[in-house]
Amino acid sequence: MAEVSTARRTRITPEREAELYAAVLDLLREVGYDALTMDAVAARTRSSKATLYRQWGGKPELVAKAIRHNKPGGADDVDTGSLRGDLRALTYREDDCTMQQNAALMRGLFMAVHGNPDLLQAFRELLVEPEMDEFRRIMQRAVDRGEIRADRPALDYVVHMIVGAFATRSLIDDRPPTQDFLMSYIDAVVLPALGVPVP
Amino acid sequence: MAEVSTARRTRITPEREAELYAAVLDLLREVGYDALTMDAVAARTRSSKATLYRQWGGKPELVAKAIRHNKPGGADDVDTGSLRGDLRALTYREDDCTMQQNAALMRGLFMAVHGNPDLLQAFRELLVEPEMDEFRRIMQRAVDRGEIRADRPALDYVVHMIVGAFATRSLIDDRPPTQDFLMSYIDAVVLPALGVPVP
Repeated sequence: MAEVSTARRTRITPEREAELYAAVLDLLREVGYDALTMDAVAARTRSSKATLYRQWGGKPELVAKAIRHNKPGGADDVDTGSLRGDLRALTYREDDCTMQQNAALMRGLFMAVHGNPDLLQAFRELLVEPEMDEFRRIMQRAVDRGEIRADRPALDYVVHMIVGAFATRSLIDDRPPTQDFLMSYIDAVVLPALGVPVP
Repeated sequence: MAEVSTARRTRITPEREAELYAAVLDLLREVGYDALTMDAVAARTRSSKATLYRQWGGKPELVAKAIRHNKPGGADDVDTGSLRGDLRALTYREDDCTMQQNAALMRGLFMAVHGNPDLLQAFRELLVEPEMDEFRRIMQRAVDRGEIRADRPALDYVVHMIVGAFATRSLIDDRPPTQDFLMSYIDAVVLPALGVPVP
């Protein structure tokens, strides 16, 4: 296989990478994070464990990258010219089925994070931080356009508001998060907290 | 012991009940929900398993009641005459140390809830619903006082806002939830979303 090389990080094709990530997510859904082994990933993807470790460093990084890979594209995709448009576009990037699959994956990972500092670090670096950067860019553009005052206190809590609603929806309402729910929440909570008028 | 009786639900003293709940919470912190057994609770509290089952019905109910018991008193405690005062009083009921212990307990339970419908039901009936009732009463009084318009959309999402922030604080900021954080969040997000002026 192309991965067997003396380079510190070997090159694998994007197709092969996507295939590996898909296998990791399948395993994650089937057995959960704790029971997922690098052996199982190697067997399912017909790779060597050495390759997996060389390429990703370890299970926490591999899993976090696989989940990240599965999420829709970066912030560059989203720039509609208004804050409400941007937040709605973010919501529309995942259909309800994908959103619920991702919610289940995140929940599984969130559960495993406790008592596992390596996973927590990978989770934060590879999933939480990129997500927060994305929101920061969207908010900065809204501030630059004059939609939000730069000293609006809710700017510090955009991710808490949105991820919190996403995470608590099932528990509180016995219903999974959906696009409709998130859009209603954006209009009811996020925009008013930021002082942005809702049409 | 007094519990051994032919009555459907036997009487135990409030002190004995508190002692039992404390032991359940200790065990929960030590071993987590899944590994907690009714045998261990019986042994630690010198009760019979039959008594525990007769009194509480099962492990999910016992654990949910123990956590509920540990939380500060009902809504009747809180009626300061303003929404901001009520929300601050709720926050002040738990000092930071208690809040963090409860956050850890809730996290453990939340983890166990998935794949355990009995626990989910007990969790919802005994913990989520009473909490939501408490918020509903506080919000209704604010509506009655004219602080919040009755048709304000954010009224549907008060618990999502607050529990969501509480639940995501550690993950997003690598810091536990505190009174200061919650009070800042109430002023930045909850009150503006409800259209209530922040002094």
